[in-house]
Amino acid sequence: MSAVAWNRYGKAAIRLVKIERREEAHDVVDLTLDVQLEGDFEDVYAGDNRRCIATDTMKNTVYALARQAPIDRVEAFALRLADHFGREPAVSAVLVRAIEQPWARIEASGRPDPHAFVQGGGERWTTLVSRRPDGTVVTSGVTNLVVMKTADSGFSGFPRDRYTTLAETDDRLLVTSVTAEWTHRRGAADFSGRGRIRAALLETFARHLSRSVQHTLAAMGEAALAASDTVEAITLTMPNRHHLLVDLAPFGLDNPNEVFVATDAPYGLIEATIRR
Amino acid sequence: MSAVAWNRYGKAAIRLVKIERREEAHDVVDLTLDVQLEGDFEDVYAGDNRRCIATDTMKNTVYALARQAPIDRVEAFALRLADHFGREPAVSAVLVRAIEQPWARIEASGRPDPHAFVQGGGERWTTLVSRRPDGTVVTSGVTNLVVMKTADSGFSGFPRDRYTTLAETDDRLLVTSVTAEWTHRRGAADFSGRGRIRAALLETFARHLSRSVQHTLAAMGEAALAASDTVEAITLTMPNRHHLLVDLAPFGLDNPNEVFVATDAPYGLIEATIRR
Amino acid sequence: MSAVAWNRYGKAAIRLVKIERREEAHDVVDLTLDVQLEGDFEDVYAGDNRRCIATDTMKNTVYALARQAPIDRVEAFALRLADHFGREPAVSAVLVRAIEQPWARIEASGRPDPHAFVQGGGERWTTLVSRRPDGTVVTSGVTNLVVMKTADSGFSGFPRDRYTTLAETDDRLLVTSVTAEWTHRRGAADFSGRGRIRAALLETFARHLSRSVQHTLAAMGEAALAASDTVEAITLTMPNRHHLLVDLAPFGLDNPNEVFVATDAPYGLIEATIRR
Amino acid sequence: MSAVAWNRYGKAAIRLVKIERREEAHDVVDLTLDVQLEGDFEDVYAGDNRRCIATDTMKNTVYALARQAPIDRVEAFALRLADHFGREPAVSAVLVRAIEQPWARIEASGRPDPHAFVQGGGERWTTLVSRRPDGTVVTSGVTNLVVMKTADSGFSGFPRDRYTTLAETDDRLLVTSVTAEWTHRRGAADFSGRGRIRAALLETFARHLSRSVQHTLAAMGEAALAASDTVEAITLTMPNRHHLLVDLAPFGLDNPNEVFVATDAPYGLIEATIRR
Repeated sequence: MSAVAWNRYGKAAIRLVKIERREEAHDVVDLTLDVQLEGDFEDVYAGDNRRCIATDTMKNTVYALARQAPIDRVEAFALRLADHFGREPAVSAVLVRAIEQPWARIEASGRPDPHAFVQGGGERWTTLVSRRPDGTVVTSGVTNLVVMKTADSGFSGFPRDRYTTLAETDDRLLVTSVTAEWTHRRGAADFSGRGRIRAALLETFARHLSRSVQHTLAAMGEAALAASDTVEAITLTMPNRHHLLVDLAPFGLDNPNEVFVATDAPYGLIEATIRR
Repeated sequence: MSAVAWNRYGKAAIRLVKIERREEAHDVVDLTLDVQLEGDFEDVYAGDNRRCIATDTMKNTVYALARQAPIDRVEAFALRLADHFGREPAVSAVLVRAIEQPWARIEASGRPDPHAFVQGGGERWTTLVSRRPDGTVVTSGVTNLVVMKTADSGFSGFPRDRYTTLAETDDRLLVTSVTAEWTHRRGAADFSGRGRIRAALLETFARHLSRSVQHTLAAMGEAALAASDTVEAITLTMPNRHHLLVDLAPFGLDNPNEVFVATDAPYGLIEATIRR
Repeated sequence: MSAVAWNRYGKAAIRLVKIERREEAHDVVDLTLDVQLEGDFEDVYAGDNRRCIATDTMKNTVYALARQAPIDRVEAFALRLADHFGREPAVSAVLVRAIEQPWARIEASGRPDPHAFVQGGGERWTTLVSRRPDGTVVTSGVTNLVVMKTADSGFSGFPRDRYTTLAETDDRLLVTSVTAEWTHRRGAADFSGRGRIRAALLETFARHLSRSVQHTLAAMGEAALAASDTVEAITLTMPNRHHLLVDLAPFGLDNPNEVFVATDAPYGLIEATIRR
Repeated sequence: MSAVAWNRYGKAAIRLVKIERREEAHDVVDLTLDVQLEGDFEDVYAGDNRRCIATDTMKNTVYALARQAPIDRVEAFALRLADHFGREPAVSAVLVRAIEQPWARIEASGRPDPHAFVQGGGERWTTLVSRRPDGTVVTSGVTNLVVMKTADSGFSGFPRDRYTTLAETDDRLLVTSVTAEWTHRRGAADFSGRGRIRAALLETFARHLSRSVQHTLAAMGEAALAASDTVEAITLTMPNRHHLLVDLAPFGLDNPNEVFVATDAPYGLIEATIRR
């Protein structure tokens, strides 16, 4: 005999765009949301749907709740959704994940237009609310923040074995796509820190004398924690998007760290959690 | 003060194609591998690289080990890699993940050609070896196995609240992209079950009288466990790729479950682990 | 002053899945369609919509026409759509493009199931109907047909200049994703040749003694024309997905054409039209 | 008998990152290049490689030429490449296509850092040089410039037939991903207009009282031509990324143009060339 040992279900990729129509200007909130439930759903796996909240209902609920109050901080909206679904008797845990696409105002005749926007780029802002019997954890983040430094980055002093061919370098390109997720202290209600944390991450990346991706990651995490009182820990994921110096010697040319080939694969992948 | 509370690093997306050149025919093994290490690497985050095995070395090691023995089962190759890196003193855990792209022989004049291949499709086969101090766990799987059933699938009897609009149905299209991962019993050395498990998943999907995705998922998981002695548990992830019946009434036409619009988002997402 | 010198508009990515419900078994037709119109639409660009057939109407028309007759060959369905829109007075040209996702029946207990299907893979079948005042051209094709040959492929004898470093080889992996588009003779009504042409392409790829991608492309095109009476010309696009031999010498190992790294970029791109 | 009626080949997706290391600051040029040749290459299709410039040589040439002079404007670099390959006797036409990834300087302590950069986003800048016997055409552009306007956009007055269900509206969201390509007058040597054209496109999009995508496209094209003396024509491609108003009536809620679902497919696709 077999049994359902773990289960989770929900609706993913709910696309919500809300326009907050203030008198003097419009604001755009552009979200992709996932709602996932855990709980006492074994009957559903046996073919009895009486406890199975339809995922279509989850989607409808997202749109209906979006109408009923302004979305000021996405974290607060995700908490409202988690509370809504957490009231269902069968539900033990609710996960609400949101990915925000930021939009910037278009400049027209030197002034920001009140009703026209341009996508800020590949960067996304993330929120995860995890509501469980032992409490609710709110995580905020940024992802796909792609950065490059062309000075003050090296990698040397690493061990060499029979399969090591990498040369040591004190001047390489460092290119990475930063994903950062920071956990707010339990009960925190102020989610305004994203701008400060983002600025601390960028400034530290720019200024750091980097001996490795790990080295810079730790400095960035430390700066992020210093930039916010209510954040307990931050997890950084930094793929090393290798840019290889092209060997131009066969063509009678030198290459003083000028001409690189950007590669997609393979890539180094560095992850760590920095905690206060 | 802050500290590194958790860390992991490695090389991802190592692309390896190995041709096993037997006398009478060639075989292709086409893998994308990740190698990830956990361990005593805090010094690296402080800028000291003496323990930092370069991810470039990890990549080289994959290619060198691929040369030194035939890759018969990917699980066995991943175990060899995990053992290699697990011998490093600083390392506490090794994760080796492999995604296999299957290739089929081209039929030429009614016979399989010995040296020519066509990609079997979007389906991929997965392997994960997790080597930790308390033992090594081997997981195998398939992913992106996209299936559709046009009969014997309904969804009704679910609860209705103020945000429920979904109609009940006893005849809908069920389309999903199956991801399955099954865990082998500790110490198992026989990894030949993929074909049997895959067949059990497909056959059960085809034959099941489905009352929900959950209902069919459980049946598929049970059949997979029945098809293999050495598998302890299987986790299935089945997104519900909704196909919506098009309303043709405005055009004076009926639509007896014939014309559908396939949608990408949002989608239901059903996940569960079935255990013996 | 400026003017509209050329214009085209329409609806793209219309997702249509039709189930043909025969007594003994179901058939699936899974299409992504584009409908594009050219014609006398300058007024629309000046803000007058009286001639602007809404792209939403195009989408509705696709679904309504799909209901009104079986979709036997996609080419015939695309011709019906092109004729429908070509009757609009403002329209001078109609383009209907269709990408078909093939599905195969699931084998259950050794027999093909009548109502359950598995996606055949990444391969897609294409159709393009171009209806213009001087006549209608029908093009059929396959795309993303990914093939590899591990023998009988070389590349040598090419010119060498100061920027040439590539070594000559008489034994390399040849991997490509074939896109083929063949044009039917005007007025042809038999579109049943896809299977024969596809088989000719695959068999020729497998059997050819290849001196270059171009060399094999020409042989494949010739075989495709020989396999069908009604095809006038075929255009083949064959990216060269380079698989590079890994240099294992630094590790004291040889590499007798066994261990390769598959690369995505850059890639050679070879395109040609073969005509009777 | 069959023959090669048309052919083209080359290297695609050449990834080049060049760092211009000025004393006071670094500049980044990040390009993905395609080089394609047409000419007298029939022999190659017959298996004779004596005229087949290896695509690997094309790639090497790109890197070698990148080293030998600063890349100030990408158009000028592409012209240098086209001239290099155009000197080969067998070559009749050269196409060089470049996609530029813009990078912005990171602000650190309120000043732009001289050596650290952040990716500006999904927007890319394009260049196409087409060198043919009858002359050389240079096209510049932007692509993936994603914009939204939340006011001053309607669509009404379009014709209604039996398949029309779309409601008229004088207030909808207009969201599009602008691709613009403008052709420079023959012999033009000043390629500095991208910023002015981009600003004209954005400002016109923001300010226009839009009766349709076509209407706004024409106004944007006109403004772009007005912003540059040396541009002869501009082609704009503007997919209509539909944002659908969510029907909240079943939940007892109104929806005064606030809550939308963003959809990917299907989408309207509007293309036109505006010429002086």
